[in-house]
Amino acid sequence: MIVVLGKESAAVVAAADGAEVRFVPDWSSVGSDVVESMEAVVGRVPAEVLARAAKLRWVHSPSAGVDADLTPEMLASDVVLTSSAGNGAIPLAEHAMLLMLMLNREVPRWVRAQSEHRWDRFTHGELAGLTLGIYGLGNSGIDLAAKAKAFHLRVLGVRRRRDQPSPYVDQVFGEEGLPELLAESDFVVVTAPSTPATIGRFGPAEFAAMKRTAYFVCISRGGIADDDALLAALRTGEIAGAGLDAHGVEPLPAESPFWDLPNVIVTPHNGATSHGTARRGEQIVLENLRRFLAGEDLLNVVDKSAGY
Amino acid sequence: MIVVLGKESAAVVAAADGAEVRFVPDWSSVGSDVVESMEAVVGRVPAEVLARAAKLRWVHSPSAGVDADLTPEMLASDVVLTSSAGNGAIPLAEHAMLLMLMLNREVPRWVRAQSEHRWDRFTHGELAGLTLGIYGLGNSGIDLAAKAKAFHLRVLGVRRRRDQPSPYVDQVFGEEGLPELLAESDFVVVTAPSTPATIGRFGPAEFAAMKRTAYFVCISRGGIADDDALLAALRTGEIAGAGLDAHGVEPLPAESPFWDLPNVIVTPHNGATSHGTARRGEQIVLENLRRFLAGEDLLNVVDKSAGY
Repeated sequence: MIVVLGKESAAVVAAADGAEVRFVPDWSSVGSDVVESMEAVVGRVPAEVLARAAKLRWVHSPSAGVDADLTPEMLASDVVLTSSAGNGAIPLAEHAMLLMLMLNREVPRWVRAQSEHRWDRFTHGELAGLTLGIYGLGNSGIDLAAKAKAFHLRVLGVRRRRDQPSPYVDQVFGEEGLPELLAESDFVVVTAPSTPATIGRFGPAEFAAMKRTAYFVCISRGGIADDDALLAALRTGEIAGAGLDAHGVEPLPAESPFWDLPNVIVTPHNGATSHGTARRGEQIVLENLRRFLAGEDLLNVVDKSAGY
Repeated sequence: MIVVLGKESAAVVAAADGAEVRFVPDWSSVGSDVVESMEAVVGRVPAEVLARAAKLRWVHSPSAGVDADLTPEMLASDVVLTSSAGNGAIPLAEHAMLLMLMLNREVPRWVRAQSEHRWDRFTHGELAGLTLGIYGLGNSGIDLAAKAKAFHLRVLGVRRRRDQPSPYVDQVFGEEGLPELLAESDFVVVTAPSTPATIGRFGPAEFAAMKRTAYFVCISRGGIADDDALLAALRTGEIAGAGLDAHGVEPLPAESPFWDLPNVIVTPHNGATSHGTARRGEQIVLENLRRFLAGEDLLNVVDKSAGY
């Protein structure tokens, strides 16, 4: 039996091709018999459900980043976890370019001027000729690199899997190359997943290594930047500003100082919240369901030790 | 003698290579003897100066668009007019992409939410998969097309000189193809110069031909869209919204209704106002000075009958 958290979907039923599918709104409505007999789940599985799911072989997460799915119990189990990685890569890259343009051109200043009917013409920057450093060359990082090349930027990147192809990236570094990337970049964009290796990766030393004229942008997960270190770097002018879609605490509390910093643009973890992301996510589910039932290799199998 | 409107520049003196160069702040400070003997001017030449400039052979405009240089007297004269076309192409294309992203993602809503410390998460669009129609495939239009392809858009364009190469454009139309471009595009971006043929080109029929979900963006010159027709289309929902950097009247008057329309983003003819534009403009001046003195063909010679 396959349990799907969410609304009934004719497409899922069709992809299951006769296999029994149970659609449930949440786990509280699922009986022990179902939990004990289910072989696959599309949705997030809490530790207490996982502990009772004796026949479970596969869990598909609706998220691209699976940090919330990787409970200690999931890490310890043999259940295969797949992700929806790639569903939001394109809109995330769009959002990164938007935040870079907004920072480079002081867009909030124009928005304020418009609301006050003021013709506020000023000299601003242009992205062409600058250097972009991307931390994490996964789906969104590579798509961002392609866009950045069309914007005439030089593109640097840090990638754990350096053997994988990284088109559009002028220079690929391993983790050990991060200081060099930081020293050369006018924009540092974090596209990496939240893993034990990336959490807190950007601390005082990393912000100190950045140019004072450079901007920090995060579109993937909060916590990769240490918020206190980031705040200090922004307040002291160690970096020029930041564009933050992912935050250490979400929703960002009303009393957070990030809201009011003049050199920070805050968006509410909203970069990939499009119908396109939902549609691509569903395509991944359908394809993985087909593969699971056919006994084929699944898409987006998570390397639990790496955390993505 | 060469007259340069503007501050003294060692680079200009060097490019003139021994020829006499006179730097002047404005025409009121220039004597008749200079006007009568000058052979070249870098700067705008009013009709009354042109009438007395018996030896003038060449005028170089500091602008990419030369609509303000093409007085009836300039049109009637044999003086060669060159432009600074290309100086702002890249930042203009950046600005067009910025306006498209801002309209597609309702960016002013995020800017307002930030100022009020509100976590306002909503579903927005993405550019990927949409169709962009570019009116005018000059320097900025082609650079915009390249960027749009990296954003996974389909790109259509209208071009007067259809024999010229138009890379990154999936389909190139002549003027007669404008209705088809308008009917298919999710974004219509005007990058064309202001000429007798383009002024008022976008009127009620053109806005009616656009999709109700489509956005109109203008980054080149006001007046190419008829402001009354544009306003009506925006107010009645005939089009979804607009991003306007160039306006029919500039500065846009405080009482203009465009400022307050909820589906309009106004910027103050500010798309190319960067140090890069100034630097590239100076490079064009220096190269043309060198060519003029060497008797070589000049860059960016304006086709006066075409208006650019």
